Amino acid sequence: MEKIILKTTKRIDLVDITDKIESLVEKSRVKEGICFLFCPHTTAGLTINENADPSVRYDIMNTLKRIIPENGNYAHTEGNADSHIKSTLFGHSLTIFIENGRLSLGTWQGIYFCEGDGPRQREVWVKII
Amino acid sequence: MEKIILKTTKRIDLVDITDKIESLVEKSRVKEGICFLFCPHTTAGLTINENADPSVRYDIMNTLKRIIPENGNYAHTEGNADSHIKSTLFGHSLTIFIENGRLSLGTWQGIYFCEGDGPRQREVWVKII
Amino acid sequence: MEKIILKTTKRIDLVDITDKIESLVEKSRVKEGICFLFCPHTTAGLTINENADPSVRYDIMNTLKRIIPENGNYAHTEGNADSHIKSTLFGHSLTIFIENGRLSLGTWQGIYFCEGDGPRQREVWVKII
Repeated sequence: MEKIILKTTKRIDLVDITDKIESLVEKSRVKEGICFLFCPHTTAGLTINENADPSVRYDIMNTLKRIIPENGNYAHTEGNADSHIKSTLFGHSLTIFIENGRLSLGTWQGIYFCEGDGPRQREVWVKII
Repeated sequence: MEKIILKTTKRIDLVDITDKIESLVEKSRVKEGICFLFCPHTTAGLTINENADPSVRYDIMNTLKRIIPENGNYAHTEGNADSHIKSTLFGHSLTIFIENGRLSLGTWQGIYFCEGDGPRQREVWVKII
Repeated sequence: MEKIILKTTKRIDLVDITDKIESLVEKSRVKEGICFLFCPHTTAGLTINENADPSVRYDIMNTLKRIIPENGNYAHTEGNADSHIKSTLFGHSLTIFIENGRLSLGTWQGIYFCEGDGPRQREVWVKII
Protein backbone atom coordinates (compact mmCIF):
# COMPACT_ATOMS: atom_id res chain seq x y z
CA MET A 1 0.00 0.00 0.00
CA GLU A 2 1.29 3.44 -0.99
CA LYS A 3 0.25 6.75 0.58
CA ILE A 4 -0.17 10.01 -1.26
CA ILE A 5 0.15 13.05 0.99
CA LEU A 6 -1.52 16.29 -0.03
CA LYS A 7 -2.13 19.67 1.56
CA THR A 8 -5.47 21.26 0.83
CA THR A 9 -5.78 25.03 0.92
CA LYS A 10 -9.52 25.70 1.25
CA ARG A 11 -12.42 24.51 3.41
CA ILE A 12 -14.11 22.86 0.44
CA ASP A 13 -12.12 21.95 -2.65
CA LEU A 14 -11.73 19.37 -5.39
CA VAL A 15 -8.01 18.67 -5.84
CA ASP A 16 -6.82 16.89 -9.00
CA ILE A 17 -4.69 13.91 -7.95
CA THR A 18 -4.61 12.13 -11.33
CA ASP A 19 -0.87 12.75 -11.95
CA LYS A 20 0.07 11.52 -8.47
CA ILE A 21 -1.87 8.27 -9.00
CA GLU A 22 -0.47 7.86 -12.53
CA SER A 23 3.08 8.16 -11.13
CA LEU A 24 2.41 5.33 -8.67
CA VAL A 25 1.04 3.17 -11.49
CA GLU A 26 4.18 3.78 -13.57
CA LYS A 27 6.43 3.03 -10.56
CA SER A 28 4.57 -0.26 -9.95
CA ARG A 29 5.40 -1.48 -13.51
CA VAL A 30 2.01 -3.24 -13.55
CA LYS A 31 0.90 -3.49 -17.19
CA GLU A 32 -2.62 -4.92 -16.81
CA GLY A 33 -4.31 -4.63 -13.47
CA ILE A 34 -6.44 -2.60 -11.10
CA CYS A 35 -5.66 0.50 -9.07
CA PHE A 36 -7.65 0.77 -5.84
CA LEU A 37 -7.94 4.15 -4.09
CA PHE A 38 -9.10 4.73 -0.53
CA CYS A 39 -9.77 7.95 1.39
CA PRO A 40 -9.01 7.46 5.13
CA HIS A 41 -10.90 10.58 6.25
CA THR A 42 -14.47 11.20 7.40
CA THR A 43 -14.82 14.79 6.18
CA ALA A 44 -13.45 14.17 2.68
CA GLY A 45 -13.96 11.76 -0.21
CA LEU A 46 -12.93 10.76 -3.72
CA THR A 47 -14.63 11.33 -7.05
CA ILE A 48 -14.04 11.26 -10.79
CA ASN A 49 -15.15 14.15 -12.96
CA GLU A 50 -14.16 16.52 -15.77
CA ASN A 51 -10.47 17.42 -16.04
CA ALA A 52 -10.85 20.33 -18.48
CA ASP A 53 -13.16 23.18 -17.46
CA PRO A 54 -12.60 24.09 -13.76
CA SER A 55 -16.13 25.53 -13.62
CA VAL A 56 -17.41 21.95 -13.34
CA ARG A 57 -15.59 21.55 -10.03
CA TYR A 58 -16.95 24.89 -8.90
CA ASP A 59 -20.52 23.83 -9.71
CA ILE A 60 -20.14 20.53 -7.86
CA MET A 61 -18.89 22.28 -4.72
CA ASN A 62 -21.37 25.12 -4.96
CA THR A 63 -24.35 22.81 -5.45
CA LEU A 64 -23.33 20.64 -2.50
CA LYS A 65 -22.97 23.79 -0.39
CA ARG A 66 -26.53 24.74 -1.35
CA ILE A 67 -27.99 21.31 -0.59
CA ILE A 68 -25.94 20.71 2.58
CA PRO A 69 -25.10 24.14 4.01
CA GLU A 70 -22.24 24.66 6.46
CA ASN A 71 -24.54 26.26 8.98
CA GLY A 72 -27.57 24.05 9.34
CA ASN A 73 -29.52 22.66 12.23
CA TYR A 74 -26.93 20.00 13.10
CA ALA A 75 -26.43 17.90 16.23
CA HIS A 76 -22.66 17.55 15.73
CA THR A 77 -21.16 20.70 17.22
CA GLU A 78 -17.65 20.76 15.74
CA GLY A 79 -18.72 23.01 12.86
CA ASN A 80 -18.13 20.32 10.24
CA ALA A 81 -21.35 18.30 10.28
CA ASP A 82 -21.88 19.26 6.63
CA SER A 83 -18.41 17.92 5.78
CA HIS A 84 -19.24 14.48 7.20
CA ILE A 85 -22.44 14.31 5.15
CA LYS A 86 -20.64 15.38 1.94
CA SER A 87 -17.99 12.73 2.67
CA THR A 88 -20.65 10.00 2.58
CA LEU A 89 -22.12 11.34 -0.67
CA PHE A 90 -18.72 11.47 -2.41
CA GLY A 91 -17.70 8.01 -1.20
CA HIS A 92 -14.37 6.61 -0.01
CA SER A 93 -13.22 3.98 -2.48
CA LEU A 94 -12.55 4.03 -6.23
CA THR A 95 -11.53 1.25 -8.60
CA ILE A 96 -9.72 2.15 -11.83
CA PHE A 97 -8.35 -0.27 -14.43
CA ILE A 98 -4.74 -0.30 -15.64
CA GLU A 99 -4.09 -1.07 -19.33
CA ASN A 100 -0.68 -0.95 -21.05
CA GLY A 101 0.90 0.32 -17.86
CA ARG A 102 -1.38 3.35 -17.57
CA LEU A 103 -4.59 4.31 -15.76
CA SER A 104 -7.62 3.67 -17.99
CA LEU A 105 -9.65 6.84 -17.65
CA GLY A 106 -12.21 8.30 -20.04
CA THR A 107 -11.09 11.20 -22.25
CA TRP A 108 -12.44 13.89 -19.95
CA GLN A 109 -11.89 12.17 -16.61
CA GLY A 110 -9.64 13.26 -13.76
CA ILE A 111 -9.44 11.84 -10.24
CA TYR A 112 -10.28 14.29 -7.47
CA PHE A 113 -9.70 14.43 -3.73
CA CYS A 114 -12.83 16.05 -2.31
CA GLU A 115 -11.85 18.23 0.64
CA GLY A 116 -14.84 18.98 2.86
CA ASP A 117 -13.21 20.50 5.95
CA GLY A 118 -9.83 21.97 5.02
CA PRO A 119 -7.29 23.31 4.89
CA ARG A 120 -5.59 20.16 6.20
CA GLN A 121 -2.89 17.65 5.40
CA ARG A 122 -4.62 14.65 3.89
CA GLU A 123 -3.80 11.16 2.60
CA VAL A 124 -5.02 8.94 -0.20
CA TRP A 125 -4.15 5.26 0.07
CA VAL A 126 -3.36 3.33 -3.09
CA LYS A 127 -3.06 -0.38 -3.83
CA ILE A 128 -2.15 -1.71 -7.27
CA ILE A 129 -2.61 -5.33 -8.28
CA MET B 1 -10.85 -5.41 -20.14
CA GLU B 2 -14.14 -5.69 -22.03
CA LYS B 3 -16.25 -2.78 -23.24
CA ILE B 4 -20.02 -2.66 -23.33
CA ILE B 5 -21.41 -0.18 -25.86
CA LEU B 6 -24.86 1.25 -25.32
CA LYS B 7 -26.99 3.95 -26.92
CA THR B 8 -29.08 6.00 -24.57
CA THR B 9 -32.29 7.58 -25.84
CA LYS B 10 -33.11 10.31 -23.31
CA ARG B 11 -31.31 13.18 -21.58
CA ILE B 12 -31.65 11.49 -18.19
CA ASP B 13 -32.25 7.77 -17.94
CA LEU B 14 -31.43 4.65 -15.96
CA VAL B 15 -30.65 1.84 -18.40
CA ASP B 16 -30.64 -1.76 -17.15
CA ILE B 17 -27.31 -3.36 -18.16
CA THR B 18 -27.54 -6.47 -15.93
CA ASP B 19 -27.95 -8.92 -18.83
CA LYS B 20 -25.00 -7.45 -20.74
CA ILE B 21 -22.74 -7.83 -17.67
CA GLU B 22 -24.05 -11.33 -16.96
CA SER B 23 -23.18 -12.36 -20.54
CA LEU B 24 -19.59 -11.20 -20.06
CA VAL B 25 -19.35 -13.15 -16.79
CA GLU B 26 -20.59 -16.31 -18.54
CA LYS B 27 -18.14 -15.77 -21.42
CA SER B 28 -15.25 -15.39 -18.95
CA ARG B 29 -15.97 -18.85 -17.46
CA VAL B 30 -14.88 -17.48 -14.06
CA LYS B 31 -16.68 -19.51 -11.38
CA GLU B 32 -15.67 -17.63 -8.22
CA GLY B 33 -14.40 -14.10 -8.57
CA ILE B 34 -15.14 -10.42 -8.80
CA CYS B 35 -16.63 -8.34 -11.58
CA PHE B 36 -15.41 -4.73 -11.63
CA LEU B 37 -17.40 -2.10 -13.57
CA PHE B 38 -16.19 1.35 -14.54
CA CYS B 39 -18.02 4.26 -16.18
CA PRO B 40 -15.56 6.31 -18.34
CA HIS B 41 -17.85 9.36 -18.61
CA THR B 42 -18.20 12.55 -16.56
CA THR B 43 -21.91 13.16 -17.13
CA ALA B 44 -23.04 9.61 -16.34
CA GLY B 45 -22.55 7.00 -13.62
CA LEU B 46 -23.40 3.51 -12.40
CA THR B 47 -25.80 2.35 -9.72
CA ILE B 48 -27.60 -0.70 -8.40
CA ASN B 49 -31.31 -0.56 -7.64
CA GLU B 50 -34.65 -2.31 -8.03
CA ASN B 51 -35.13 -4.42 -11.16
CA ALA B 52 -38.90 -4.90 -10.86
CA ASP B 53 -41.08 -1.78 -10.64
CA PRO B 54 -39.85 0.86 -13.17
CA SER B 55 -41.42 3.60 -11.02
CA VAL B 56 -38.37 3.30 -8.74
CA ARG B 57 -36.11 4.43 -11.57
CA TYR B 58 -38.53 7.23 -12.36
CA ASP B 59 -38.45 8.43 -8.74
CA ILE B 60 -34.64 8.36 -8.60
CA MET B 61 -34.36 10.47 -11.76
CA ASN B 62 -37.18 12.80 -10.80
CA THR B 63 -35.82 13.43 -7.31
CA LEU B 64 -32.34 14.15 -8.65
CA LYS B 65 -33.88 16.56 -11.16
CA ARG B 66 -35.60 18.35 -8.27
CA ILE B 67 -32.46 18.56 -6.12
CA ILE B 68 -30.07 19.38 -8.99
CA PRO B 69 -32.15 21.11 -11.69
CA GLU B 70 -31.00 21.31 -15.31
CA ASN B 71 -31.32 25.09 -15.30
CA GLY B 72 -29.59 26.37 -12.20
CA ASN B 73 -27.15 29.14 -11.46
CA TYR B 74 -24.15 27.26 -12.86
CA ALA B 75 -20.69 28.45 -13.90
CA HIS B 76 -20.22 25.69 -16.51
CA THR B 77 -21.96 26.98 -19.64
CA GLU B 78 -22.36 23.84 -21.75
CA GLY B 79 -25.88 23.20 -20.44
CA ASN B 80 -24.87 20.03 -18.61
CA ALA B 81 -23.52 21.28 -15.28
CA ASP B 82 -26.29 19.32 -13.54
CA SER B 83 -25.19 16.14 -15.36
CA HIS B 84 -21.63 16.44 -14.01
CA ILE B 85 -22.92 16.85 -10.45
CA LYS B 86 -25.27 13.85 -10.79
CA SER B 87 -22.35 11.83 -12.18
CA THR B 88 -20.38 12.40 -8.96
CA LEU B 89 -23.37 11.44 -6.79
CA PHE B 90 -23.99 8.19 -8.72
CA GLY B 91 -20.31 7.21 -8.73
CA HIS B 92 -18.12 5.56 -11.38
CA SER B 93 -17.04 2.15 -10.08
CA LEU B 94 -18.94 -0.91 -8.86
CA THR B 95 -17.69 -4.19 -7.46
CA ILE B 96 -19.93 -7.28 -7.72
CA PHE B 97 -19.05 -10.82 -6.64
CA ILE B 98 -19.24 -13.87 -8.91
CA GLU B 99 -20.41 -17.17 -7.40
CA ASN B 100 -21.03 -20.40 -9.33
CA GLY B 101 -20.26 -18.62 -12.58
CA ARG B 102 -22.95 -15.98 -12.09
CA LEU B 103 -23.20 -12.41 -10.79
CA SER B 104 -24.15 -12.40 -7.09
CA LEU B 105 -26.90 -9.82 -6.89
CA GLY B 106 -29.66 -9.46 -4.33
CA THR B 107 -33.13 -10.69 -5.31
CA TRP B 108 -34.39 -7.27 -6.37
CA GLN B 109 -31.14 -5.82 -7.70
CA GLY B 110 -30.34 -4.77 -11.25
CA ILE B 111 -27.28 -2.86 -12.51
CA TYR B 112 -28.03 0.49 -14.12
CA PHE B 113 -26.14 2.86 -16.38
CA CYS B 114 -27.15 6.34 -15.22
CA GLU B 115 -27.34 8.63 -18.24
CA GLY B 116 -27.19 12.28 -17.23
CA ASP B 117 -26.68 14.06 -20.55
CA GLY B 118 -28.03 11.90 -23.38
CA PRO B 119 -28.94 10.74 -25.85
CA ARG B 120 -25.39 9.51 -26.57
CA GLN B 121 -23.37 6.44 -27.34
CA ARG B 122 -21.79 5.32 -24.07
CA GLU B 123 -19.42 2.68 -22.74
CA VAL B 124 -19.11 0.63 -19.57
CA TRP B 125 -15.75 -1.01 -18.95
CA VAL B 126 -15.67 -4.43 -17.32
CA LYS B 127 -12.87 -6.46 -15.75
CA ILE B 128 -13.42 -9.94 -14.34
CA ILE B 129 -10.91 -11.67 -12.06
CA MET C 1 -17.93 -15.21 0.05
CA GLU C 2 -19.05 -14.68 3.63
CA LYS C 3 -22.39 -13.25 4.73
CA ILE C 4 -22.97 -11.01 7.71
CA ILE C 5 -26.53 -11.10 9.01
CA LEU C 6 -27.88 -8.12 10.92
CA LYS C 7 -31.23 -7.04 12.30
CA THR C 8 -31.99 -3.36 12.03
CA THR C 9 -34.37 -1.79 14.53
CA LYS C 10 -35.47 1.49 12.94
CA ARG C 11 -36.81 2.67 9.57
CA ILE C 12 -33.65 4.68 8.90
CA ASP C 13 -30.43 3.91 10.73
CA LEU C 14 -26.66 3.72 10.38
CA VAL C 15 -25.45 0.51 12.02
CA ASP C 16 -21.75 0.11 12.84
CA ILE C 17 -20.54 -3.17 11.31
CA THR C 18 -16.79 -2.54 11.66
CA ASP C 19 -16.25 -5.23 14.32
CA LYS C 20 -18.13 -7.84 12.30
CA ILE C 21 -15.98 -7.15 9.22
CA GLU C 22 -12.79 -7.09 11.31
CA SER C 23 -13.66 -10.54 12.70
CA LEU C 24 -13.98 -11.95 9.18
CA VAL C 25 -10.60 -10.45 8.24
CA GLU C 26 -8.98 -12.07 11.29
CA LYS C 27 -10.63 -15.40 10.49
CA SER C 28 -9.35 -15.26 6.90
CA ARG C 29 -5.71 -14.98 8.12
CA VAL C 30 -5.00 -12.72 5.13
CA LYS C 31 -2.11 -10.42 6.09
CA GLU C 32 -1.95 -8.10 3.06
CA GLY C 33 -4.99 -7.89 0.83
CA ILE C 34 -8.30 -6.30 0.08
CA CYS C 35 -11.69 -6.66 1.74
CA PHE C 36 -14.64 -6.15 -0.62
CA LEU C 37 -18.09 -5.41 0.83
CA PHE C 38 -21.39 -5.61 -1.03
CA CYS C 39 -24.92 -4.65 0.04
CA PRO C 40 -27.47 -6.94 -1.69
CA HIS C 41 -30.47 -4.68 -0.96
CA THR C 42 -32.17 -1.87 -2.91
CA THR C 43 -33.40 0.17 0.05
CA ALA C 44 -30.10 0.17 1.97
CA GLY C 45 -26.43 0.89 1.34
CA LEU C 46 -22.94 1.03 2.81
CA THR C 47 -20.84 3.99 3.91
CA ILE C 48 -17.78 4.94 5.91
CA ASN C 49 -17.94 7.76 8.43
CA GLU C 50 -17.03 8.89 11.94
CA ASN C 51 -16.91 6.19 14.61
CA ALA C 52 -16.79 8.50 17.65
CA ASP C 53 -19.58 11.06 18.03
CA PRO C 54 -22.97 9.45 17.23
CA SER C 55 -24.36 12.90 16.37
CA VAL C 56 -22.58 12.60 13.00
CA ARG C 57 -24.75 9.62 12.10
CA TYR C 58 -27.81 11.50 13.27
CA ASP C 59 -26.94 14.47 11.05
CA ILE C 60 -26.38 12.25 8.00
CA MET C 61 -29.76 10.58 8.42
CA ASN C 62 -31.57 13.78 9.28
CA THR C 63 -30.15 15.68 6.32
CA LEU C 64 -31.05 12.87 3.92
CA LYS C 65 -34.56 12.85 5.37
CA ARG C 66 -34.80 16.59 4.67
CA ILE C 67 -33.49 16.32 1.09
CA ILE C 68 -35.40 13.12 0.23
CA PRO C 69 -38.50 13.06 2.46
CA GLU C 70 -40.41 9.84 3.16
CA ASN C 71 -43.65 11.38 1.93
CA GLY C 72 -42.93 13.02 -1.40
CA ASN C 73 -44.61 13.06 -4.76
CA TYR C 74 -43.39 9.58 -5.74
CA ALA C 75 -44.54 7.16 -8.46
CA HIS C 76 -43.50 4.05 -6.50
CA THR C 77 -46.40 3.32 -4.17
CA GLU C 78 -44.89 0.94 -1.63
CA GLY C 79 -44.06 3.77 0.79
CA ASN C 80 -40.32 3.35 0.38
CA ALA C 81 -39.50 5.35 -2.75
CA ASP C 82 -37.26 7.57 -0.61
CA SER C 83 -35.39 4.48 0.63
CA HIS C 84 -34.52 3.41 -2.93
CA ILE C 85 -33.18 6.87 -3.75
CA LYS C 86 -31.09 6.98 -0.56
CA SER C 87 -29.76 3.52 -1.41
CA THR C 88 -28.35 4.83 -4.70
CA LEU C 89 -26.75 7.84 -2.99
CA PHE C 90 -25.06 5.69 -0.31
CA GLY C 91 -23.81 3.11 -2.81
CA HIS C 92 -23.54 -0.68 -2.65
CA SER C 93 -19.87 -1.61 -2.77
CA LEU C 94 -16.86 -0.69 -0.63
CA THR C 95 -13.19 -1.61 -0.99
CA ILE C 96 -10.97 -1.54 2.12
CA PHE C 97 -7.30 -2.54 2.31
CA ILE C 98 -5.91 -5.13 4.72
CA GLU C 99 -2.47 -4.51 6.24
CA ASN C 100 -0.79 -6.65 8.91
CA GLY C 101 -3.90 -8.81 9.12
CA ARG C 102 -6.20 -5.91 9.98
CA LEU C 103 -8.58 -3.57 8.15
CA SER C 104 -6.78 -0.36 7.17
CA LEU C 105 -9.19 2.35 8.24
CA GLY C 106 -8.49 5.98 9.07
CA THR C 107 -8.34 6.94 12.77
CA TRP C 108 -11.94 8.14 12.90
CA GLN C 109 -13.49 5.75 10.40
CA GLY C 110 -16.12 3.10 11.01
CA ILE C 111 -18.03 1.03 8.44
CA TYR C 112 -21.80 1.52 8.47
CA PHE C 113 -24.76 -0.39 7.10
CA CYS C 114 -27.22 2.28 5.98
CA GLU C 115 -30.74 1.05 6.65
CA GLY C 116 -33.30 2.98 4.61
CA ASP C 117 -36.48 0.92 5.08
CA GLY C 118 -36.26 -1.04 8.32
CA PRO C 119 -36.66 -2.68 10.65
CA ARG C 120 -35.59 -5.75 8.66
CA GLN C 121 -33.15 -8.62 8.65
CA ARG C 122 -30.34 -7.64 6.30
CA GLU C 123 -27.13 -9.04 4.85
CA VAL C 124 -23.72 -7.70 3.94
CA TRP C 125 -21.62 -9.86 1.63
CA VAL C 126 -17.85 -9.95 2.16
CA LYS C 127 -15.01 -11.24 0.01
CA ILE C 128 -11.38 -11.12 1.14
CA ILE C 129 -8.44 -11.62 -1.23
